[in-house]
Amino acid sequence: MSSPEIEALVQSLSRLPGLGPRSARRAVLHLLKRRESALQPLISSLQAVDERMLSCGTCGNIDTSDPCHICRDHRRDGSLLAVVEDVADLWAMDRSRLFSGRYHVLGGRLSALDGVGPDDLAIGGLLSRVETGEVAEVVLAMNATMEGQTTLHYLAEQLDRFDITVSTLAHGVPVGGELDYLDEGTIAQALRARRAVG
Amino acid sequence: MSSPEIEALVQSLSRLPGLGPRSARRAVLHLLKRRESALQPLISSLQAVDERMLSCGTCGNIDTSDPCHICRDHRRDGSLLAVVEDVADLWAMDRSRLFSGRYHVLGGRLSALDGVGPDDLAIGGLLSRVETGEVAEVVLAMNATMEGQTTLHYLAEQLDRFDITVSTLAHGVPVGGELDYLDEGTIAQALRARRAVG
Repeated sequence: MSSPEIEALVQSLSRLPGLGPRSARRAVLHLLKRRESALQPLISSLQAVDERMLSCGTCGNIDTSDPCHICRDHRRDGSLLAVVEDVADLWAMDRSRLFSGRYHVLGGRLSALDGVGPDDLAIGGLLSRVETGEVAEVVLAMNATMEGQTTLHYLAEQLDRFDITVSTLAHGVPVGGELDYLDEGTIAQALRARRAVG
Repeated sequence: MSSPEIEALVQSLSRLPGLGPRSARRAVLHLLKRRESALQPLISSLQAVDERMLSCGTCGNIDTSDPCHICRDHRRDGSLLAVVEDVADLWAMDRSRLFSGRYHVLGGRLSALDGVGPDDLAIGGLLSRVETGEVAEVVLAMNATMEGQTTLHYLAEQLDRFDITVSTLAHGVPVGGELDYLDEGTIAQALRARRAVG
């Protein structure tokens, strides 16, 4: 058996998504062999994140400032608002560099199974932002899962009373996707939304 | 884009074996949502390991003391010495709780491809330990890879001049293994070493 310090670290690491006990043990050995080049930089990065990261009171993004750099960026289009389930979705969308508006993070999705109702999500905050009259279009960028789509329909109903455009992401063949590997649902959606060429 | 603090942490984590950039990002979000239950305990565990873990000057194990708890344990059989490539192998062998002797960590394997020669491994230390006359049997517990077996044969030659038993691990079907999933080499070895039943 290795020492309790190492077992504790293996336990902490193996709770991370994507790491099991075996890969956590390998990671610990990797770190132990590279104290100055890997272990100590990792500790500093974790401490920096723990000390500096805040939740944005406006959109729910995680950043070093509140409001976050996206909410403060005046070159962003304040009339365009993308609603996402999670901070990870916000980052993924922002990495595409195509969306020039602002975001609103719900903090989850409606799920009867997990006992997540409308009051557990940041829906009140979303409606308040729309009520200011600044927003002209809300893009409901939920995941294409059952629960994501349930959430999307619920939000579309809630937003119906405002005089704004409510849109959602297109379904279809992902870029680089091969038909052979796609499920029938995606192919059906891509067919229904087919476009004229040339 | 997320903030530089988060990007730095994603980078640090994605260098760990078993984690790519995508899973590192997921792990960071997991930690950010659980500061007190996951992020802070992880920092403490890493710091404890960084501050307290030492390399054993006798066997090469990583432990909180030098000599390590295995080298200090007088209930262990000092006449039996298992030579392993890496600390991870020592831990794996010790988890089996069957081996009652002590260990010697080589710190790698001979590899012409990676430019690892005999001088890069803790072979001198091994020979010194055997020279004391305390060791009666050396178990060469190398991995069953090409390089592991090359190292094994090199060590067997080096140990030939001592009046001791030199042994190695048995090859065969792993416990729980299904023949259908095993390579021909393993099956051939298991057949050659077959035992009478009953």
